[in-house]
Amino acid sequence: MALLLKSDIERGDAWQRALRACEPDMTVHDWPYDGDPAEIEFALVWGPPRGALRDFPNLKAIFSIGAGIDHLASDPELPDGVPVVRMVEPGLTAGMTEFVILSVLTHHRFMLDYAIQQRDKVWREIPQIAAAQRTVGIMGLGVLGSEAADKLAAFGFDVAGWSRSPKERPGIATFHGDAGLAPFLARSAILICLLPLTPETQGILNARTFAALPRGAALISIGRGAHVVEADLLAALDSGQIGGASLDVFRDEPLPSESPFWTHPRVIMTPHVASMTIPDSAAEAVVANIRRLRAGQPLEHVVDLGRGY
Amino acid sequence: MALLLKSDIERGDAWQRALRACEPDMTVHDWPYDGDPAEIEFALVWGPPRGALRDFPNLKAIFSIGAGIDHLASDPELPDGVPVVRMVEPGLTAGMTEFVILSVLTHHRFMLDYAIQQRDKVWREIPQIAAAQRTVGIMGLGVLGSEAADKLAAFGFDVAGWSRSPKERPGIATFHGDAGLAPFLARSAILICLLPLTPETQGILNARTFAALPRGAALISIGRGAHVVEADLLAALDSGQIGGASLDVFRDEPLPSESPFWTHPRVIMTPHVASMTIPDSAAEAVVANIRRLRAGQPLEHVVDLGRGY
Repeated sequence: MALLLKSDIERGDAWQRALRACEPDMTVHDWPYDGDPAEIEFALVWGPPRGALRDFPNLKAIFSIGAGIDHLASDPELPDGVPVVRMVEPGLTAGMTEFVILSVLTHHRFMLDYAIQQRDKVWREIPQIAAAQRTVGIMGLGVLGSEAADKLAAFGFDVAGWSRSPKERPGIATFHGDAGLAPFLARSAILICLLPLTPETQGILNARTFAALPRGAALISIGRGAHVVEADLLAALDSGQIGGASLDVFRDEPLPSESPFWTHPRVIMTPHVASMTIPDSAAEAVVANIRRLRAGQPLEHVVDLGRGY
Repeated sequence: MALLLKSDIERGDAWQRALRACEPDMTVHDWPYDGDPAEIEFALVWGPPRGALRDFPNLKAIFSIGAGIDHLASDPELPDGVPVVRMVEPGLTAGMTEFVILSVLTHHRFMLDYAIQQRDKVWREIPQIAAAQRTVGIMGLGVLGSEAADKLAAFGFDVAGWSRSPKERPGIATFHGDAGLAPFLARSAILICLLPLTPETQGILNARTFAALPRGAALISIGRGAHVVEADLLAALDSGQIGGASLDVFRDEPLPSESPFWTHPRVIMTPHVASMTIPDSAAEAVVANIRRLRAGQPLEHVVDLGRGY
């Protein structure tokens, strides 16, 4: 049994160690691989070159290293009939939940305003509102969005979620589809985007979307940079329609130095670090799924490439 | 039945409305009061002038508007034998918990470093550690500290608490007294001060305390400004012994414009807003306690003025 690993360079060793600890009988080959392609049964990858996974005739499953699988779905030359599996592992989920709670509390507690007051040496209390009066909207109710919604609701926030297809979740007001988008946006003083990136969600955060939010709403963009029409976001920030933004993802990464987001006083910028897969916990999830397959059970978390997530 | 109210000016109306809604039979007089002093049975106050509460011969209880009662305990001319009651109400507790979680996550997720990177247009991921590997220490395990400790533990942090007398709390490592302070500090990468202000805790955050922390620890100071020896904190920040600080309270408030905390790159400064009493929920707590007294039951949350909290 052999797995081909294409990680980012810095974490290759951690993956090797973690996978070996979970499944000593599995050989893990680093990318690029120049052995016998027929030996490779599994691929655990981030951003493989277009068409490259077609070279392995006995490939049984492709595991994405990240929660998003747009790096795979965008390859028109993926091998036919080989299931693609999204990453669902507790370390990634916990990190994303932390980042969502941190970002929501940052806007809820006016920390951008207080940072500006600190810079200007102004001592002034901004009247606080209770969490129950603060409406938070989450776009995307997959594993990450659902967990974040639950934790925000537990904090007392008034939480709604929006997804493509109808979903129910206790304690969360849910909306779906095109018809549900406007009413969802109209009640979201803090908007979080955790959608998958698909042709339908590309550019979904645009001037129309921003105009549908309550004036001065905060945006937390932690899905993919291509969800955002960046010129529209800048205009909305400058007009005050968007009161503040936490941006972790961008169309071009690293963000070019000429981007106005670096210096915008209403933007908190992070370099795509909202959450990352933790090799130790992720290796367990991948190995458990491989064992399921070998025991004749269906793989978990298989992507529907037709809908793109 | 009459209550004398000394609030800050902006919230006087909200208090009047909230108290009237809870107890229509109670007359609420605003400070200063020039009616018959014998009519006043209860005082709900923030920072009354020294000795002023001695003027009311039938005073049965003094309610503090804030969680801290140092503004009362520091008055050597408090009326003898009249119980002083700290403010315990869900709005105040929820607001403090929010601020603690926000501040801990801010340091846990390196947001000060990312803010400096944003200013310098540097795109660089800082390796994240899991919450379970992050040690958080809370000084003060009263109502506010205990609630914050529980919520941090629920987030997966490795939480310890320190208090003057021994306390037990499931899921929290507890330390107490002088002997427990050094081992508690040695394991606290993020230190939160929620102690009451007493002669014993004045200046407790000093050079010796900071030296006992792990190098680069973060400080979250949200109790009282006088807990901190400010010159020692500045030295610890400048040496890197303290890696970052969230400061909400100061020796002199408003913070004087010449204070170096305004401009220190490793300081997040807020103007004493970590939490505030919410008149609606607080009025319910005060009225419930008054009803308890009138029914012959003991008051809840009475302060031990001898120990100062």
